[in-house]
Formats: sequence, structure tokens, C-alpha cells
Amino acid sequence: MYKLVLVRHGESLWNKENRFTGWKDVELSEKGKAEAVAAGQRLKAEGFEFDKVYTSVLTRAIKTAWSIMSELDACYLPVINSWKLNERHYGGLQGLNKAETAEQHGEEQVLVWRRSYSTPPPALTKDDERYPGHDPRYKDLSEAEIPLTECLADTVARVIPYYEETIVPDIKAGKRIMIAAHGNSLRALVKYLDEMSEEAIMKVNIPTATPLVYELDENLKPIKNYYLADEAALAEAMDAVAKQGKKG
Amino acid sequence: MYKLVLVRHGESLWNKENRFTGWKDVELSEKGKAEAVAAGQRLKAEGFEFDKVYTSVLTRAIKTAWSIMSELDACYLPVINSWKLNERHYGGLQGLNKAETAEQHGEEQVLVWRRSYSTPPPALTKDDERYPGHDPRYKDLSEAEIPLTECLADTVARVIPYYEETIVPDIKAGKRIMIAAHGNSLRALVKYLDEMSEEAIMKVNIPTATPLVYELDENLKPIKNYYLADEAALAEAMDAVAKQGKKG
Repeated sequence: MYKLVLVRHGESLWNKENRFTGWKDVELSEKGKAEAVAAGQRLKAEGFEFDKVYTSVLTRAIKTAWSIMSELDACYLPVINSWKLNERHYGGLQGLNKAETAEQHGEEQVLVWRRSYSTPPPALTKDDERYPGHDPRYKDLSEAEIPLTECLADTVARVIPYYEETIVPDIKAGKRIMIAAHGNSLRALVKYLDEMSEEAIMKVNIPTATPLVYELDENLKPIKNYYLADEAALAEAMDAVAKQGKKG
Repeated sequence: MYKLVLVRHGESLWNKENRFTGWKDVELSEKGKAEAVAAGQRLKAEGFEFDKVYTSVLTRAIKTAWSIMSELDACYLPVINSWKLNERHYGGLQGLNKAETAEQHGEEQVLVWRRSYSTPPPALTKDDERYPGHDPRYKDLSEAEIPLTECLADTVARVIPYYEETIVPDIKAGKRIMIAAHGNSLRALVKYLDEMSEEAIMKVNIPTATPLVYELDENLKPIKNYYLADEAALAEAMDAVAKQGKKG
């Protein structure tokens, strides 16, 4: 009935350095750029076409979308950017790597943040340079909308209303949609579409720049879903993400 | 009061080959890519910021916009694509180079098409593979809107209503706008803004990937305009365009 394609951005410079990235606007790594091009080539080879692209306001997701559009000879597609598709905001952990986090907060606490659906990391204060209110791209957000930290439940709470209110009407209108986003904003969507439990979604690792196709029935319920990737490449990509400790 | 920035795309593969490009969706050349990056760096160095970007549905203009946005760390800006900002449609000349055109149509006729504001080149027929109706990006256009050929007057007749109805309200709302477009769609705007005669505009050569800044008063009348470029570089770029025989 309908097809919806989800793509996590290619490897970023901080994925590579194993840092909590969140809303920090880091660039794709060279590997990440190549992954995005390969994702576009794969979509093209499989005959995918789109009418509209949704992405976040973070460069790594936008450039992943642009690369795919370029490979599809479809740079002209409308692109809608929303902060609601941003990565989970990692609060006070943003910028720290795994070792620094364990040192500052203890191994046990880090495990709680990683494995818990609803325990957010420490909140930023508004005078922190990492506070999103300092960034012009968030100038139209109300203070209540600007996160100081997020657990996955918080990310779900902004992604799903955006999907239902903004993206679903497009899908129902017959538009073929690609969403280029982030490990945790896509987890939010996968949890919703597949009606997964809070525990189950925490175990899902979405590989970078690997198109995830959902075939949806007339009520937008999934009939099936699958990654566009060779099995070996997919296993490798998922393993790489799992090793990063599920950071976005 | 207001600033509006116009940028012609960087050199394309067909600019280089001296072919009539029009609506043919050719890529930027390596030089063109570098020009677009340099334009972004220049805008950044001069402190320019934007709220919204308008461009055509042709890849060379879109990628010029993307490169500039990337240099400005502003990939998240909304981009509005419209065919109304496309290059002038060159009808039956599209794809021909200067020598081929002279051979097919005679030197004298070619001069008329080049120098006349209101004489269009020969029209395409709808079974021509170059007819835009065959391209999915134009699927929402009515048959009457799809050009078979255009003189500059025809380009003006689509660009200016689009500017007045769609872009002007954004400028008046205080949005800082960049328009990344083409030699002739920008000529249309320059003619309108500077109230130039039909003869005068035919002599204006807009250099590739060189930001043209208009400072506008509260009625959106130009106070002044200037290119962001070193004088020597500007003279060279204008000369290069003039040598191409004013093709877009």
C-alpha cells in the first residue's frame, strides 16, 4: 500500500571518537560520507523514488539526505527540516566520551543511563554553552520546548506527534517519503510502528546509512520491514553501532 | 533596511563545453563546485546570515545553494525549490553548442536569438525527449505552464510574479533571503529591481557564484547593490561569462 524509508545518518566524527553527540552539530566522517552515497546508490539500484524528504536540523542527517537525493538525481525534492527529528539530547553527557563519562559519573550510573528508557542524563543549565537556546536554529522554539536533557521516552514524546501530525498526512496523500534522522529519533519511530515495549526498543541498534523500508497497509500499520543491505554488511554495521554503546 | 542576496550557480559542465543548457539538468564542473564553496566562504567572512533560501529545481543551482549553506554552517535553513526560478528554456537550441547552432540555423539567426529580448528560439515539440513534461519534477505543472521555448521576456514573465507573490512577503516579514539561480532568471530579477530597459538587460552578464547583494529600502526599492568579490576576480568572471555568448 505505502512504503516509508528511514535512514540513519552516516558515521559522524563523534561516532568515530565514541562521544555522546546528541544535538552537537558534528559533520559526517569521510566514512560516513561514503556510506551516505552508497545508501543512495542502493536505493537507486532498487528503483526507489521519493516525493518529499524529512530530516532534522542537524548537519549529519541533512547531508546524508542530500547525498542520497543526489545519487537519485532528485536534488529538487522538497526537504522539510524539523528539530523534532533531532537525535536524543544527551544533556550534560554531550561531548564526553565513554571513558570520561565513567570517570565523572561512575560505571554503574552510566549503565543506568544507557539501559533505561526513562532515566535522563543530568540536565544542562541555561548558561551552559551546550544549551540549545544559544543556537539560532532553535530561535523559534519556546523555552518549554528546548530540552536540557532527554531520555528515550522524551525523544519519543516529540518524534511521534510530529510523525502523526505532519508526516502521516503526506503518506496518506500518496507521497513517497524518506526520513533521514538519527539513532534515537528513528528508534522512537520503530518502537511506535512495530509497537515494541520499552525494554525491546532499548536493544534495537539501527545501523548507519542503511535504508530501512517499511511497507505499510492502508491504516499505516507495518506489513513488513527490511533493510536494503547485504546480510554481511548489515551484520557488520549493526555490530559497529552496538559497540558504540548505543549512542547517537 | 533589507538585504537580498542573489547568486548564480557555479560553472556547469555545459558552461564549460559552451552548450545551450537551459533546463537540461547538468552538474557543476569541479571548478563550479570550488566557486560555490568560495562564495560561501566569502559570505561567511562578510558576516552574512540567512533565514531562508530560494532556488530552482535544477541541480547546479541547488548544489550551489547547498555548498554555500554548508560553508555558513546553516544546512538546516529551509530551501524552497521552484521551477519558476529555472534558467531560461532554450527550446530547440538546448544541448547544441555555438558551432552546431550556427551550422543548423545560420550565424545571423543566432545573433538575433542572442541579442533579442523577445524573439524565442525554435520551440520543442512534445515528442522531443527534451520536452519538460517528460520529467517527473514538472509533473505538477499544467500543460500551459510547461515551456516549449523561451525568450528572456518569457522568463521575466514567470520569475517576477514568483518574486512578488512568494519572495517579497518573506523579505517584508524580515527574513534574510538568498536566491541561488541562473544567468537569465537572475537577469529577470535584476531588470525588475533596477528598472532596466530591455536593451540594457541584454548587456548585463552575471558572473557565476559571485554573491550580488541588494540593499533595499522599506518599499523594496534598491538603495545600492554590489558584488562580493575582489575587483580583479569579478572582471575575470564577467569576462568569462561574456565569452560564453551570454548563455545560461
